[in-house]
Amino acid sequence: MALREEILGKNNRLAERNRGWFGGRNILALNLVSAPGSGKTTLLERTIRDLGGALPINVIEGDQATVNDAERIRATGCKVVQINTGSGCHLEADMLARGLRKLDPPLNSVLMIENVGNLVCPALFDLGERAKVAILSVPEGEDKPIKYPHMFRAARVMILNKIDLLPYVDFDLDRCIGYTRRVNPGMRVFQVSATKGDGLAQWYDWLRAEARTSQQEAIA
Amino acid sequence: MALREEILGKNNRLAERNRGWFGGRNILALNLVSAPGSGKTTLLERTIRDLGGALPINVIEGDQATVNDAERIRATGCKVVQINTGSGCHLEADMLARGLRKLDPPLNSVLMIENVGNLVCPALFDLGERAKVAILSVPEGEDKPIKYPHMFRAARVMILNKIDLLPYVDFDLDRCIGYTRRVNPGMRVFQVSATKGDGLAQWYDWLRAEARTSQQEAIA
Repeated sequence: MALREEILGKNNRLAERNRGWFGGRNILALNLVSAPGSGKTTLLERTIRDLGGALPINVIEGDQATVNDAERIRATGCKVVQINTGSGCHLEADMLARGLRKLDPPLNSVLMIENVGNLVCPALFDLGERAKVAILSVPEGEDKPIKYPHMFRAARVMILNKIDLLPYVDFDLDRCIGYTRRVNPGMRVFQVSATKGDGLAQWYDWLRAEARTSQQEAIA
Repeated sequence: MALREEILGKNNRLAERNRGWFGGRNILALNLVSAPGSGKTTLLERTIRDLGGALPINVIEGDQATVNDAERIRATGCKVVQINTGSGCHLEADMLARGLRKLDPPLNSVLMIENVGNLVCPALFDLGERAKVAILSVPEGEDKPIKYPHMFRAARVMILNKIDLLPYVDFDLDRCIGYTRRVNPGMRVFQVSATKGDGLAQWYDWLRAEARTSQQEAIA
């Protein structure tokens, strides 16, 4: 549909401008995408508390309504701006640009963008991030990567969250990883419990390495 | 946005045609909406197995990709048509109309429409259903009704699923009901576990009563 192409085309141009801005400030920007209730905010709270000293992290929160998530993030001590999309189903590059002017994230920092909880629409909208990080939680079921393939193809990293619930639900871990590789063979997968702390060390290692790489590229 | 109004206006007209068609055939049509992985398909499988003898139920399945859900539903013995939306994020009235021609549901039956797992976009698109039934699952968290208010306002019934997981997650039941009533004071709420069977009797009573009412209205 021509109209859709036009909307996406305009978004893609503004996303490239955001990408340039992140490059100019040497900011590692990650776009966290998932279904509602996968635990994105809890993962962010924990990550900021565990790493915030060594790695300065700031946050843009996307939600249809409420400032609840921003308040949770603010309590960790980092800077946060909440964007409410109203009836909108995803963040777009121009919304992010406006949020960035308010947030004013410092040089050499990490920006976490928590998108609206939606496994469909945010897949189509580049925000200028370095990578999309898809969060899937165990209670959602192992079939989600093949049922929402666009999102799991668009992401470079998958965080499988709530692994502490594995004993209580019907979830085939090997099958989930298999489905994920089927739609995205290169996907990096971390198995974690953001509430209990399991598996977070690997995610933190990846984050630190990615921040270093993005810094080297900015200098090169 | 004028364009959005035009798209919704066209959809609304086709939805009314579907509504008339359901009236003409005395079909109770329900539109099941939720986040990915809330347990819609499991609830449907169980409902059809438990009620299918007394209440003829057929299904339209909406998913971005795969025919997995249709296969699960077909195994219950009912008729089912799968609609794949590709990169699309919701069912629209014209997709449903095409699905209905394939499904050919009989007079005096119940049609369950399982929408794409998405708590945002399907709220805007009337399909001609008698009611939207929102499914929320306990692991998603109690705040979802206020974070996705459009959907919980658009629905007439909420099924709070996976209550068997309450002992293992941080979920405040009273607060969830309070949030739900805040966005939709008249919302009917059923607390169930579709896998274990808890609370399903009330949902079945509602379903039977709704089928009777829709039949009486069709005759009147």
